[in-house]
Amino acid sequence: MPAADLSQQPARPSALDPAVAARLRRSADGLVAAIVREHDTGDVLMLAWMDDEALHRTLTTGRATYWSRSRKEYWVKGATSGHHQYVRSVALDCDGDALLVTVDQVGAACHTGTHTCFSDELTVTRPEEDA
Amino acid sequence: MPAADLSQQPARPSALDPAVAARLRRSADGLVAAIVREHDTGDVLMLAWMDDEALHRTLTTGRATYWSRSRKEYWVKGATSGHHQYVRSVALDCDGDALLVTVDQVGAACHTGTHTCFSDELTVTRPEEDA
Repeated sequence: MPAADLSQQPARPSALDPAVAARLRRSADGLVAAIVREHDTGDVLMLAWMDDEALHRTLTTGRATYWSRSRKEYWVKGATSGHHQYVRSVALDCDGDALLVTVDQVGAACHTGTHTCFSDELTVTRPEEDA
Repeated sequence: MPAADLSQQPARPSALDPAVAARLRRSADGLVAAIVREHDTGDVLMLAWMDDEALHRTLTTGRATYWSRSRKEYWVKGATSGHHQYVRSVALDCDGDALLVTVDQVGAACHTGTHTCFSDELTVTRPEEDA
């Protein structure tokens, strides 16, 4: 049962294979989430966003390409930083709103210079019965 | 530079630690993305969504709890299916809009019965110079 705010159409023109585009369930702003995982380590590196064209470029150039929600533009990871992401594989999830992008990561994935963006551990307090 | 559509306030009342809540950068509908990873295998299982209260419940009960965008309600993973997720750790990303939730998964993570939700591999055609 799709949420009311899903977009059936790409936000921008794209050369993405129509058979793939038809399986996407986009957010209201035309995006799907892209989870980025490192091939060699399995580490989850970052979360970014793709529209149809960013996915098309990722699939056809082998370089991870995202849509920047703040800058409203395409963004080839590493183009500025040199921290390239060479794409090994891309998988779509069961409901079409998330991608798992497996990459060879050059240098740090995070713009802060850390290996992954997920370095802020929150405190989990499990109840005693689960301890 | 935050996108214009970020919400500075929780969408619903929550008992989440204010110090954690202050670090969240929520979507327009008050949510952050939750990437779910299996502890033992490192497999990325699924992507779900949390509001402040879902994160609070996840951190304090040790059971992964999400916000269902379609049903507009909280959802304890496994409550219906028996496919529970016992939370090992939760990390927030550098810009506060995504969580990495590491769990012990009971049974299949995907509602389709597969181990992970990411079973639809897309074709990647790398240019010859990268081959």
